[in-house]
Amino acid sequence: MKLATVEHDRAERTALVLDQGERLLLLDRAHRLVTGEHAPALTTMQTIIDGGEPVRQTLERLAAQAPPEAVVAASDLRWLSPLPRPVQIRDFGSFMDHFRNARSRIQGIPADQVELPAIMLERPLYYVTNRLSVTGHDSDIHWPAYSSVRDYELEFACVLGRDGTDIPTADAPSYIFGYTIFNDFSARDTQLEEIATGLGLSKSKDFTDSNVLGPWIVTADELGDPYRLTMTARINGEEASRGTSADMHHTFADMIAFASQSTRLHAGEVLCSGTVPTGCGLEHGRFLEPGDTVELEVSGLGVLRNRVVS
Amino acid sequence: MKLATVEHDRAERTALVLDQGERLLLLDRAHRLVTGEHAPALTTMQTIIDGGEPVRQTLERLAAQAPPEAVVAASDLRWLSPLPRPVQIRDFGSFMDHFRNARSRIQGIPADQVELPAIMLERPLYYVTNRLSVTGHDSDIHWPAYSSVRDYELEFACVLGRDGTDIPTADAPSYIFGYTIFNDFSARDTQLEEIATGLGLSKSKDFTDSNVLGPWIVTADELGDPYRLTMTARINGEEASRGTSADMHHTFADMIAFASQSTRLHAGEVLCSGTVPTGCGLEHGRFLEPGDTVELEVSGLGVLRNRVVS
Repeated sequence: MKLATVEHDRAERTALVLDQGERLLLLDRAHRLVTGEHAPALTTMQTIIDGGEPVRQTLERLAAQAPPEAVVAASDLRWLSPLPRPVQIRDFGSFMDHFRNARSRIQGIPADQVELPAIMLERPLYYVTNRLSVTGHDSDIHWPAYSSVRDYELEFACVLGRDGTDIPTADAPSYIFGYTIFNDFSARDTQLEEIATGLGLSKSKDFTDSNVLGPWIVTADELGDPYRLTMTARINGEEASRGTSADMHHTFADMIAFASQSTRLHAGEVLCSGTVPTGCGLEHGRFLEPGDTVELEVSGLGVLRNRVVS
Repeated sequence: MKLATVEHDRAERTALVLDQGERLLLLDRAHRLVTGEHAPALTTMQTIIDGGEPVRQTLERLAAQAPPEAVVAASDLRWLSPLPRPVQIRDFGSFMDHFRNARSRIQGIPADQVELPAIMLERPLYYVTNRLSVTGHDSDIHWPAYSSVRDYELEFACVLGRDGTDIPTADAPSYIFGYTIFNDFSARDTQLEEIATGLGLSKSKDFTDSNVLGPWIVTADELGDPYRLTMTARINGEEASRGTSADMHHTFADMIAFASQSTRLHAGEVLCSGTVPTGCGLEHGRFLEPGDTVELEVSGLGVLRNRVVS
């Protein structure tokens, strides 16, 4: 299943994505038509996730019946982040060649001569990012005035389906509800200033709509193997990035096991892959200008498109 | 006013702190006794904050009447974080001598010879930390098995009372609802490994109950000037840290103005001061052992006490 959150008739609604996203089934409306009753568990993506297997069965019944009066065209709605207010977002470093490429540019040495700290290979390190600066597919990103090096990051993310602490790697896949594309827009000039301090990332990753999720969540069973996905980015229709999730040095299972060490992870938390190699301007040199449209495509997950404006 | 969140009769409740914290007025119970009605706006600290001036007036009326049947002894309840699930937590670097002291230890040079990156003096840099790993006064901290260098950090924090974007420094104080003490427990061995990567802080700051807030929130009007506070820490009753908020290079107003650049800040978000000079074992060499009790005292804000267990 593909699940979206959209604005329709001036209200936030959950929906099942039909076709390739041209049409959607509004879930609460479908439920009312089929059963005559409002379904509180279908109100938000978080309630759907929290609802577990019973809600999933409800969704399957609604998908099978799909009353036409609950089907709307994508052109009649606005896409929101599938989780408009995720309970938390962590962004990991899982693709090692991204770091080699980036450091090669910064340090002016060939990528294959970049020595990464051993800990980056040993552990899927991460930072927590602003969960309240989130937007979805087809929205404009208003670039902050303090930055003039505008960059995107081609990533994807898993969304947790249940809570857990000290989750063994082997069990971790069963904690994943689904996957979505993630664009970690980055004020790259600001970031290069901030990382010199070792304190982490402040305003480089924390501005309005800097975290884009979408266009929808593909459930784990529907996606299948998440480590054979082709990941591409296009700027104004021209390919700028091409990679594969097969290059992940740390898997989502590794990330879940690592982050959950002595820490409770919660249903609805978002764990992002980090940037695929070639997946940002810092690696290939093409940064974004006001008016540019960036499309991130991940096979099986769709296309996440945003326009940068000043 | 001093406002707390406590567990009483197996339920989470908000309370007004009386005396020096020996007795508390349970707010919903007081409201029922005075008006005969349940008050949804008094249910959680977040609803109290969101309620703004009308709720504040209600609190003042309840405080004046303080029906004795709504007063309970602190010994009959469990302290929770005043915000058990803050909408977000950012931790800033505002005390420059903390960084000089820490780097002096790490680099083996005198503190006055440490050169800090200019950006740290120019901007109140911060990181976002796990808002779901929060606990309160008098709780035990179960140290994660992956760390053996257990450290505390003596900080305090402001809690925002309303939303804003691009908040001017001069207006920022009016966005502050109140203040509370913050102990940023840190797996110091893990942190020293993580910061070498420049990626920020992962498991060193992210474990169960690693973020302690409390014992209560003192409203901004009651605290008065937040930059004249004496900050001390005691380990098993023995003083280990002593500093003053007068040494903050960046004020809370600076932090609010900086973080809100092109970003919406929300009522209930927590902005932490960073560690006061001498305020952690990394500076003075006394780390924590299982069984140690740490008390953080900030004049006007109370004492925040926790015990570290293995």
